[in-house]
Amino acid sequence: MIILGLDPSLSCTGWGVVRAEGSRLTHIANGQIPTNAKAPMAERLAALQSGVAQVIAAHIPDRAACEEVFVNKNPQSTLKLSQARGAVLAACGAASLSVNEHAARLVKKAVVGTGGADKAQVQAMLKVLLPGAAIAGADAADALAVAIADAHLSG
Amino acid sequence: MIILGLDPSLSCTGWGVVRAEGSRLTHIANGQIPTNAKAPMAERLAALQSGVAQVIAAHIPDRAACEEVFVNKNPQSTLKLSQARGAVLAACGAASLSVNEHAARLVKKAVVGTGGADKAQVQAMLKVLLPGAAIAGADAADALAVAIADAHLSG
Repeated sequence: MIILGLDPSLSCTGWGVVRAEGSRLTHIANGQIPTNAKAPMAERLAALQSGVAQVIAAHIPDRAACEEVFVNKNPQSTLKLSQARGAVLAACGAASLSVNEHAARLVKKAVVGTGGADKAQVQAMLKVLLPGAAIAGADAADALAVAIADAHLSG
Repeated sequence: MIILGLDPSLSCTGWGVVRAEGSRLTHIANGQIPTNAKAPMAERLAALQSGVAQVIAAHIPDRAACEEVFVNKNPQSTLKLSQARGAVLAACGAASLSVNEHAARLVKKAVVGTGGADKAQVQAMLKVLLPGAAIAGADAADALAVAIADAHLSG
């Protein structure tokens, strides 16, 4: 079972692909899709959509996963994040990929063992769970964490 | 100048295409892209994205326009609407189409003459401005109104 974890955001969407065989996890690939902050919104969203479509075409995952959306207190932030999610999820839907959504707390719990874990703890645990994986950045790390959590939670 | 007006929404996205030659407006086409409420979110977003891409391919607009997003008091509604917008705008970006955004008040003002116009007034005015156009529904009417407003506001 090949799982694509996604961490959508307008400025930089993280992605990570893992293989789950029973309880065994293997890292396949990870990366980040940055967008040009000076480009028009439609162009940035198209870049996210096309970037995710390319990842799907390259790794042919069986399913995808992302965190449940975080409703920010700042409506403009929620709006930007949700638009990015829309473009990213549309790419999954176009590839007939189902997308599991998990609460951020459950993702941390599945990876670190506690829902209150911080980013540093999650990243340290990724090194243990996916030894040797070169992680492209913080967004890719979040995406790998979602993929791992999905292997546990939906497996 | 061919203008594509869009009224993105998850349940049914409206679209309308008009030709603007100086101050003269001609109706070209309009329609609605409904999505299956029982289908997974990613599939619904992909349907919107692909539906808008088909409209663009069929009518080759010079630019697109939509209303500025309305930040609902209900964060879940804002989230759904923004995700739909993300899929729709990604389709525009993929076709290198620039998208003008106009405040709802300015759209009503451009079409009816007053920013406080209601839906019925907007629809009555569409019949005057685009005589003979068969309008597919309320969402298509809103999209045509945005296209007309864009012709006035960005012309």
